[in-house]
Amino acid sequence: MPKLVMKFGGTSVSDVERIKNAASKILIEVEKGFDVIVIVSAMAGETNRLVSLVNSVSTLYDAREYDAIVSSGENASAGLMALTLQNMGVSARSWQGWQVPLITNSAHGSARIMEITTQKLNEKFLEGMRVAVIAGFQGLTNDGRLSTLGRGGSDTTAVAFAAAFEADQCDIYTDVDGIFTADPRITNKAKKLSKISYEEMLELASLGAKVLQTRSVELAMRYNVPLKVLNSFSDNDGTLVCQEENIMENKVVSGVAHSRDEAKMTLISVADRPGIAASIFGTLADKGVNVDMIVQNISDDGRTDMTFSCPVDQVELATVTLNEAKIKKTFNYRELIADQDVSKISVVGIGMRSHAGVAAKMFQALSNENINIKVITTSEIKISVLIDRKYMELAVQSLHDAFELGVEA
Amino acid sequence: MPKLVMKFGGTSVSDVERIKNAASKILIEVEKGFDVIVIVSAMAGETNRLVSLVNSVSTLYDAREYDAIVSSGENASAGLMALTLQNMGVSARSWQGWQVPLITNSAHGSARIMEITTQKLNEKFLEGMRVAVIAGFQGLTNDGRLSTLGRGGSDTTAVAFAAAFEADQCDIYTDVDGIFTADPRITNKAKKLSKISYEEMLELASLGAKVLQTRSVELAMRYNVPLKVLNSFSDNDGTLVCQEENIMENKVVSGVAHSRDEAKMTLISVADRPGIAASIFGTLADKGVNVDMIVQNISDDGRTDMTFSCPVDQVELATVTLNEAKIKKTFNYRELIADQDVSKISVVGIGMRSHAGVAAKMFQALSNENINIKVITTSEIKISVLIDRKYMELAVQSLHDAFELGVEA
Repeated sequence: MPKLVMKFGGTSVSDVERIKNAASKILIEVEKGFDVIVIVSAMAGETNRLVSLVNSVSTLYDAREYDAIVSSGENASAGLMALTLQNMGVSARSWQGWQVPLITNSAHGSARIMEITTQKLNEKFLEGMRVAVIAGFQGLTNDGRLSTLGRGGSDTTAVAFAAAFEADQCDIYTDVDGIFTADPRITNKAKKLSKISYEEMLELASLGAKVLQTRSVELAMRYNVPLKVLNSFSDNDGTLVCQEENIMENKVVSGVAHSRDEAKMTLISVADRPGIAASIFGTLADKGVNVDMIVQNISDDGRTDMTFSCPVDQVELATVTLNEAKIKKTFNYRELIADQDVSKISVVGIGMRSHAGVAAKMFQALSNENINIKVITTSEIKISVLIDRKYMELAVQSLHDAFELGVEA
Repeated sequence: MPKLVMKFGGTSVSDVERIKNAASKILIEVEKGFDVIVIVSAMAGETNRLVSLVNSVSTLYDAREYDAIVSSGENASAGLMALTLQNMGVSARSWQGWQVPLITNSAHGSARIMEITTQKLNEKFLEGMRVAVIAGFQGLTNDGRLSTLGRGGSDTTAVAFAAAFEADQCDIYTDVDGIFTADPRITNKAKKLSKISYEEMLELASLGAKVLQTRSVELAMRYNVPLKVLNSFSDNDGTLVCQEENIMENKVVSGVAHSRDEAKMTLISVADRPGIAASIFGTLADKGVNVDMIVQNISDDGRTDMTFSCPVDQVELATVTLNEAKIKKTFNYRELIADQDVSKISVVGIGMRSHAGVAAKMFQALSNENINIKVITTSEIKISVLIDRKYMELAVQSLHDAFELGVEA
């Protein structure tokens, strides 16, 4: 039978009534003839509760224990979904990550999926099981420890299952109607997109659109999995994330993304020798710091300033890492400055490739509002800037207007 | 190095402060030179929360899914305890039941431990790990599903680990000072016992003293594991549960136990043929009904009334089971009556073996208070009665006085 993957986020399974609502959507697909693989997140708030328990013990924790604790939230929602489907007369059972197994590498806290064994599930589907409910976000390392895929990891779980089982489509149910040109909570002119390319979605996701985890989109692009973002609480037709050639006409800019809780960190006066950047960011990566933007100023007398951004909640980890005596001696920098009050704003669009002047237009729009730009980075299809956090909403609204994203195409 | 098992119940790990308090007790034993195996329950309230989620989906559930859901509470407390110990400089890690593995049979919801693999933990102890923190209550079946050992199963986990690893002692940390002659919340004359035999503890546990799970005491008796009940929140010396010969002088009666939420069920006019009782209670056991007392009246014209007690929350399960058409036809009973408002009161004591008149004294004490006895059962060291629930407290107090349990020995 054809297979479909359906993923339900935390707000879609936050209580028994919502689980029933989600189950009724699954039932419709089962009745259409699909064998369904359902991926569930933890009930809304549960992962936060577990994370804050960990943090109340220690902010510098053993990531293997963090994973063992934080992964437990999905077990309950998976079991409850299986029970709810059984009550509706659907042959269903739950699987925890280690039961499948879904094997990951050992990068605890943000592990990457290495392999999904299809055998056991396929046997059960052949025996008549119609729905396999999978606890998302979690996996098993080769040395038998529990791992988690990082925040939003259930999306990645869903796409990986869709690829492994060659599912027709991967439906991501969430609490929004789809992908918008900007966050509708910030500008009420934001419009839902009916289609968006993987590349644009990738930039939007990583930049804080928060609807889909970056890696899930990367994975969907690599395996060409049609990905649909849908609202659990409406019958809206959502947004299809697909290949660029399936989208007829691109605007120059598709959307304005923002990421609120960024920090800008600067290493003042680093010895500018070959390999220094690789060494610094390699060290940070080893400790699990998610460095995003990196800017290096022109070298002056063999010394340079190195600026990077990372999530605010990793400032302590980055600081401790870089202040470690041996590290400090190796990099021989003068000072480490952290600015914890910045946000990142990005404009994204495949159309940029063939249109000059997007950057100029963006900077002019910000300048018109007297918003100072602290750091700039660009890629082929996006331009990002760091600005003071207090200007974040204003910047999004101004850019949304400047690129006429609220106007019907 | 000598091994010690320490078990901490839900109230002993209900928040981060209490986990730290428990960890400090573990640290003391590590510093004494013990390699410690710590068994933790879920944080207080967590298992109830998970059970009520299951019940809000369905009261007749797939027990395998129930176990997958309900077992997840222990994962968090095990990880948090490991992190807390690490913060104190103790080499510690957590293990979930399936990681050890602790193998159980497939009686989901009240599974029995078949085997504990000691190899992996012992390897880690040899490598320098000082504390293995085990998520209690949970195990793995041979077909790879999660199982739970039933309420209080963490005690059983603890004793099983103590037996498997030949630990010197198994310390059960709870929120009471030890085993009392009666529930101190019911009579303030109740006294703490410094020692009690396995046999008496067994009767007290199964009858609702609620400090230790019955099976944990059975297991401790079988493997002669010295079991100590201690208070996490005081330095009281607790109660040692040990072999009878280690207790110098026994009172006739050691304690008065009660069990509040019992139900009395009667099958009216069952065909009284050989094997009928085995068949009825075999059927109930297969469905997981915990039948406790069983009384069969004198047979009259080849038909008899069969009365049994079970926990109130299993009345529906028992009723559905016995009302199933095929079962009903087989047993050919006239009517099934459930009385859901009874409690069980028991007096327990090894001294009863050599003293006549205990039953008479008990019945007289109840009669003096005009408490009607509905069902009586006796064993070598205990006498139990079912009475109306509203008389429960009065009965405990009267019996505690009658047997002079509040008087210093």
